[in-house]
This record gives sequence, structure tokens and C-alpha cells, in this order.
Amino acid sequence: MTVLLDRPIVPSPASALVCRNCGAQFPLGAQHACFECFGPLEIGYDPAALARVTREEIEAGPHSLWRYAGLLPVGQDPSTRVDSGTGMTPLIRADRLADELGFTAPVWIKDDSANPTHSFKDRVVSVAITAARELGFERIACASTGNLANSVAAHAARVGMPSIVFIPADLEPAKIVQTAIYGGTLVGVEGSYDDVNRLCSELAETDEFESTGFVNVNVRPYYAEGSKTLGFEVAEQLGWRTPAQVVAPMASGSLLTKVLKSFKELIAAGLVPTAADGLPVMFGAQSAGCSPIATAFANGWDEVRPVKPTGIAKSLNIGSPADGPYALDAVRTTGGSMAAVDDDEIRAGIRLLARTTGVFAETAGGVTVAVLRKLAEAGEIDTSRETVVYNTGEGLKTIDAVSEGAVPTAIIPPTLKGMREAGLL
Amino acid sequence: MTVLLDRPIVPSPASALVCRNCGAQFPLGAQHACFECFGPLEIGYDPAALARVTREEIEAGPHSLWRYAGLLPVGQDPSTRVDSGTGMTPLIRADRLADELGFTAPVWIKDDSANPTHSFKDRVVSVAITAARELGFERIACASTGNLANSVAAHAARVGMPSIVFIPADLEPAKIVQTAIYGGTLVGVEGSYDDVNRLCSELAETDEFESTGFVNVNVRPYYAEGSKTLGFEVAEQLGWRTPAQVVAPMASGSLLTKVLKSFKELIAAGLVPTAADGLPVMFGAQSAGCSPIATAFANGWDEVRPVKPTGIAKSLNIGSPADGPYALDAVRTTGGSMAAVDDDEIRAGIRLLARTTGVFAETAGGVTVAVLRKLAEAGEIDTSRETVVYNTGEGLKTIDAVSEGAVPTAIIPPTLKGMREAGLL
Repeated sequence: MTVLLDRPIVPSPASALVCRNCGAQFPLGAQHACFECFGPLEIGYDPAALARVTREEIEAGPHSLWRYAGLLPVGQDPSTRVDSGTGMTPLIRADRLADELGFTAPVWIKDDSANPTHSFKDRVVSVAITAARELGFERIACASTGNLANSVAAHAARVGMPSIVFIPADLEPAKIVQTAIYGGTLVGVEGSYDDVNRLCSELAETDEFESTGFVNVNVRPYYAEGSKTLGFEVAEQLGWRTPAQVVAPMASGSLLTKVLKSFKELIAAGLVPTAADGLPVMFGAQSAGCSPIATAFANGWDEVRPVKPTGIAKSLNIGSPADGPYALDAVRTTGGSMAAVDDDEIRAGIRLLARTTGVFAETAGGVTVAVLRKLAEAGEIDTSRETVVYNTGEGLKTIDAVSEGAVPTAIIPPTLKGMREAGLL
Repeated sequence: MTVLLDRPIVPSPASALVCRNCGAQFPLGAQHACFECFGPLEIGYDPAALARVTREEIEAGPHSLWRYAGLLPVGQDPSTRVDSGTGMTPLIRADRLADELGFTAPVWIKDDSANPTHSFKDRVVSVAITAARELGFERIACASTGNLANSVAAHAARVGMPSIVFIPADLEPAKIVQTAIYGGTLVGVEGSYDDVNRLCSELAETDEFESTGFVNVNVRPYYAEGSKTLGFEVAEQLGWRTPAQVVAPMASGSLLTKVLKSFKELIAAGLVPTAADGLPVMFGAQSAGCSPIATAFANGWDEVRPVKPTGIAKSLNIGSPADGPYALDAVRTTGGSMAAVDDDEIRAGIRLLARTTGVFAETAGGVTVAVLRKLAEAGEIDTSRETVVYNTGEGLKTIDAVSEGAVPTAIIPPTLKGMREAGLL
């Protein structure tokens, strides 16, 4: 049977798995650690293939992250893509937020709560499940702090693939319900996310899980590339240029690292010009309850010392962050900074963003906005330079965090007299 | 100062306010009832202006409902639009749902949980606030069963306009928090939605509310037009044609009525061909706890007798539906049907949709899917004809409805032994 595609078949620009530690190269496949030094692997590309991608091709593509397929390791053939409409989320100019924080340059919110399961995880899952199917896996799995669980379970239901999702048993109830509703296997693990992650690494080595793709274990090099689309979209939405400053939340540290990588790739491919003032300056946000990367930054350490996470920003609660050293490097080499904020500051950050922009963020978004405020007040971020702030998730998922005090202004009987007595008329 | 727009200025195709009862015409403005017969008013258009709109213009427009500005009463000048990225939500081909329900033709889910505040209300609010600003109102208000409250408060925060939102005091907690978080005035009214609506109609006549636009009272003719984009998008997403059958939820009855109107306008404007088998057949969905329109349909009544709403589908709980007679007419003239489903069927509908498509709907979406199933089982909908089903809201907003039983498959210690003892390895 001849399959007719709406564009010519493009070979993948990915060329190898490359060790981020020692540089050793391996063939593309379901491998995540270097056989030489056990360092983490990432996708390496053929620079000539990336350089062939044009703005026009991207703009003529679908209104989803798959418009950037030419810069991703999988999905070049549209029929192979898991496309749930993820990506191309709004970039919102937040003038009222900028005013309150004393910015004289534009502040933009990249609002990833607009994705299908309302977090940025839909990006990495779209790429990971597409890769898992290409690699021949029959079941999909993940270790998750909640948002990834939602996304994996939903996408598995969408494409009719069995799933098994592992979460800390003490997750927010909304995140448990939103994962269980899709009908896959959901395993609550008594322990922290780091315990869940260790268990998944062990399971991925067992015979019973041989045909199971763990999106953030043995498919991780592909999975992580999905985060690059957060940077690609911002550059395209700004009219094919990079912003001066970026504030991003840090859990494993992967997102921040990949956003910077995405800007570098766009410049290398000739899709955006090198800005006169160089690469975007990267700023990292953590909660005080789990700030191993920000603590290392503050102390000038090269290594990240594991912590036991606490606090309301559960989606960021990774005490042993795999990409911490790379996030440190990204922030240091671009001249940025990091900060951590406590639970009260996080709640205030959620309310500040909602009140000034109409965006209701989950606790991770509260962390990022609160860190933006803290950096601005401390003079550590330049308020005269254009800044992009990533909101990675939806307030409805962590609604308990802000429900105290979020009540009606008044409760009245259904009469004009009631309005008058409440002082509203 | 010269303002440069990216397209030529297009005059509004709207020509008058027209009484849906007696046909009397009035100049465009903030009026919602006929001075002659007190009938409801809707927007009338200049047919020649609608006929000038082309597919190419629409396709070159923004990826939001404003691509259809040429078919709407306001927003022709892009700088006047309240554009939060609402619209162009996914149309998902639900093959696994179709299989389970015995459909041999495609079933599509139009998923409006993808809007910024995760319900179709963002459509009517985008149009209503744009109109309210054009009409000179300084504050925005609404009566709401919850989703409209969320959307009005969020959009008001986005554009920096004061808001006052009226809700039944017993709403779902998540909907109260998600409205309060935006910082506007929120009034809980002791009574049903119908009581809240009556109070707002009274308030709109007071001097104190003279400069307040109630989106679904004195701005209602504009507001209601926003729902047409639900039909416009489906036709464009299907490749500029109408579906054979449509299943839509009914609260006031406006949505279903406007979707049919949108298909008629597309045909009249020459944007889609008249299908060989005529207009789409319309099917209406209500919950058993509030089924005044479906009851009138079942009994062959022309009038809709008000009821006192009960049941979990609170966003559909309008006991005295303003557009009920028009919804009856739309369903009868197209040869469709209506049905109502109880709370257990609604919960099963939510789970069925999630499990087969990866879409987590609120109770209103559960109603619509459960009615689809009921109509299919009863042979009242043609399972050999292509069918579009509207999901109007997000499961996270009514999560309590399905939290019972939505728990992990197993809770285990973080060890392989734990996996084995749970029978998972």
C-alpha cells in the first residue's frame, strides 16, 4: 500500500547518542548511560541536517511542537507522531506584572498550562512515546512527581498503548485522580520521587520490563529533547530571535538546560541571528523545600548535594537532580543567577501572576514568578532587559495550595437588598 | 498617530439587533430584549458582507477564534480584540470510543477543555468583553454556574478591567478558588443559578451598574455569537464541510442553537457546500437532574417548563433555560433527538472518554458522552454517520465527581520485592 504524506519524507537529523560526560558516541537506540563512564547520554545531530531546516518549513508545519520535527530526533514522518496538539502555547506579554516588579522592558509568560494535560510534560511525552513506538516498545512507563504521570497515562489512552505509571504515594489528590481516570496501571510508591526513580531504573533492567519503555529512564535521551521546543517556540513567537533573559523552574535541571541548548541549536542552524549581547542569560528557580541546585550555585559548588525534599511545590521535588550540574553550568556560563523561595512566597507568586495576567499557575509556576520577583528586588536580574518566564503547569492541579482565603468577597441572598447590605450597591 | 494594522480595516458585518420572536430590528448596542414584544435579541448580519469572507482570509488569520472575525459582530480591527488564544481547540478522532459504541463512521471529540480557562466559555467571553469595551462599559460582570465565572475573572485580569462575578454559593470548590484567585469581586448568592441570573437582570437596570456590562444579560446578543466559532472550527477542521450529526450539551440551550446557526451561515456565505443529506442532525444532551429541554422534547411540548436543578452536572444546571425553545426547534427541524442521563451514567461517561481518548472531561462532557452512548444503544442516532461530540469543559474542575475509586492500582514499598508481592512483576 502506498502511503501518501503531505510533505516529502525527511530523514532524522539525529546521528548518535553522545555521552555528556566523556563525549563517547553510540548508535541511536534505547540506551541512556555511557558504556565507558556511565555518564548520561544525549542526542547528537548532524549539523548539516539541522542547517537545512528553514523558517518557512517550520511556519508551514502543524500548530504543535511537531512543526520542529526537523530539529528533533523522531517524528520526521508525520504518520509516526503522537500528536495531541501539544505545544505552540501562548507567549503572553505581561505588562501589568512587569509594572508591579519594576521592569522597564517587556516580561513574557510562556504558558505551558495550555497543553492537553496542562503541563510542559506533554512535550517530552509526545517525543518519548513517538520514540518508544519507533524503538519497538509495547508498553510505556514513567517515574513521576505527578504531571508526567498525567501526561503519560493520557497519551497512552489516546494511542491505545498499555501504561504503567509510578508516583510517590503522597501526591496531591488531583494528580492521582487525573492519572487514574485514564485507566492504565498506576502504582503508588511509599517514598520520595528519588525512591520512585531508583525503582524504575531497577525495573528497566528486568526481563519482565524488557518491552517497556520508561520515558525518563531508557528513553530519556529522546524524552529530554522535547523540552527544546519550549525554546524553539519562544524564538519563533518573538519573531525569530532570542530573548535577553530567561527564568525557568528547576526540578531535575533538564528543562533549563534544554532551553539554552535550543537557542544554541537555532543559532547554529542559522534560524535566529546571534544577538549583539550574546546568548540569553539563564536564571534558575527552586523552592526552599528542595533547592539542591540553587544551594550549589550560592555556594560556588560544582557538584549538587542531594537533599530530602519538603514543601508544596511537589512537581519540583527532586532531591537528587540528574541534570543539576548541567543547569549550574548553563546559568554560570551565561552570567545568570538562581534563587529559592519558601511556601508563602510561592503562594504569593501564584496570586500575583493570576491577578496581573489571568494565568492560574500550579505551585511550580508560583516558584518561578516568586523567584522573578526576588531576583528583581535583589537587583540580580536586569529589569531593563526583555525577560521570558516559563509557567510549566496548571493551578487546578495544586488548588489546595491556594484555597485558603480564595473565597467569595461576600455571600448574599438573591436580592438588591442583599447587595446593599453587603456594600456592593 | 497612524496605527498600522497587518490587514486592511474591515467594517463589522453586523447590521442590527433582531428580535428572535417578532423580527423587529434595533440599532446595534447594549440591548438584549425587544422593545416591542420583550423577545430575546440576536445579531443580524449583512448577507453581502458575510459573502465577502473567504476561506483563504480565515486560514491566514490568527490561530484563535478571531480568525473568524469577519463572521462576528466585533473585533474586525485586531487591536480591539481580547485575544487570549481561545479557540482552534483540537478536533480529536476518537476511533476507540467509536468502536466501543458500535459506530462504523468516525466519531470526533471537539475538545474545548483546551481553552485558556479550560471551558468553551472563553469563546463567548472573548467576544463579550471585546464588545463591552467597544460599547464603552468600564466594568464587566456575569451570572455563572462556574465556568463563566472563571473565564470572566481571568479575562478581566488579563486586560486590567474591574470585574464582579455572581455565582451560586454552593458551587464546586475548585470553581470558586479558580475565580477568586484572579482578584476580582466575587459574590456568592444563596440560591440557584436561576436566582443569580434574575438578580443580575435586576442589577443591570440600576444606576449603580450603568457602566457595567453583564456579559450574559445586556451584552448577551454579542456574547452568544461567540459560540458560533464552535461550529466554524469544526467545519474548517473537517476540510470545509459540515458533519452529518452533532451531539451537544444543553444548559440555556444557546450553544446547540448557535452551532446550527454557524453551519447555516457558513453555507449561506458560500464557505462550505450544502451537504447532499442536508444540514447536520442535532442531538441535545442534559442531565436527569436538570432536563427541562429534553423533557419538553420527549413530551412533544413547544414550551419549556422550568425545573429546580439537582445533580452533579452543575455547569448545566439551568432550570429555566432562555434558549430552550430554540434548541427544541433546532433538534426537531434537523430530525435529531434529545436524552438525559443520571449521575452514575455521567461518571461512566467521563471514564469512558478518558480511557478511550485521553481526554478528561468535566461533568458536562460526561453528560454529552453518556447521552451519545444512550442514543447509540437506543438506535436513536445513526452509527453509520460521522458524528461530532462537544466536550465543553475540564475534568480537573469537577474532580470530586470521579474521585471515588480513582486510586492507584497498588501501593508498594520502593523495591522489586514490593512489585512482586503486588503481582506487578
